[in-house]
Amino acid sequence: MSDSSFPEVIPEVKPLIKGIDHIGIAVVDLESAISQYRTVWGNEIVHKEYIEKDRVNEALVAVGDAYLQFLSPADPSSPVAKFLDRRGEGIHHIGYRVDSCSAAVEALKVAGIKLIDEVPRSGSRGTTIAFVHPASANGMLIELVEE
Amino acid sequence: MSDSSFPEVIPEVKPLIKGIDHIGIAVVDLESAISQYRTVWGNEIVHKEYIEKDRVNEALVAVGDAYLQFLSPADPSSPVAKFLDRRGEGIHHIGYRVDSCSAAVEALKVAGIKLIDEVPRSGSRGTTIAFVHPASANGMLIELVEE
Repeated sequence: MSDSSFPEVIPEVKPLIKGIDHIGIAVVDLESAISQYRTVWGNEIVHKEYIEKDRVNEALVAVGDAYLQFLSPADPSSPVAKFLDRRGEGIHHIGYRVDSCSAAVEALKVAGIKLIDEVPRSGSRGTTIAFVHPASANGMLIELVEE
Repeated sequence: MSDSSFPEVIPEVKPLIKGIDHIGIAVVDLESAISQYRTVWGNEIVHKEYIEKDRVNEALVAVGDAYLQFLSPADPSSPVAKFLDRRGEGIHHIGYRVDSCSAAVEALKVAGIKLIDEVPRSGSRGTTIAFVHPASANGMLIELVEE
């Protein structure tokens, strides 16, 4: 396999992705979504939080050691409200688990990967996070998550 | 939380979802996508397969105990080719790990969840799979995966 277009960076922290942390799913009705997971699938709701910065309500459903993160807008100006208007309910982003968000951000910057957050910031559950731009990630919105 | 709209089913197999098995990602150029993951992120390619039924080439990148499943169309009539034409590169589906695909399918049927595969079938890597319809899953295409 040819990989000459990407420089090797910070090999000591690789692999950068330690696992899937969560699947972020935009929904209109948070209670209805998590009710189905609890009752039909039997997977438990383990966390609820209002995320003020993004004006969304979050509910986490445990799936093994990962989470389904259901997100519903708290007001019409929320980015998730705009996503729902444009695309309807569905997968909003994927959370990759990393050991160090700042080390991952530096490694990605060196490699020329476009980031939404050039500096890690606080996420829900006390995590440290940074978003990677879909233009550098096969159209996926990726969130780096350090727990 | 109210859950009166969903009947309780087969509690002995719950929770049905044991973890995230994979993130299915539609890409135009398989080699370029996996090259970035190997070189920049440092996550290894662990499996490649041509899936004749869906006319796609698959490559799996290990992320912890889950996979990023990159899918590129082997011909223009492939469902993944149509997805790329319509939406561009991005997340195509999510694989949920289950102990028994047939038990999960029966539980979901009883609960009135719409399935694409009413009978489990063979997937890649020797797995047994069934797809759940996005109309019953918050706009997500879900694949049940029994390893």
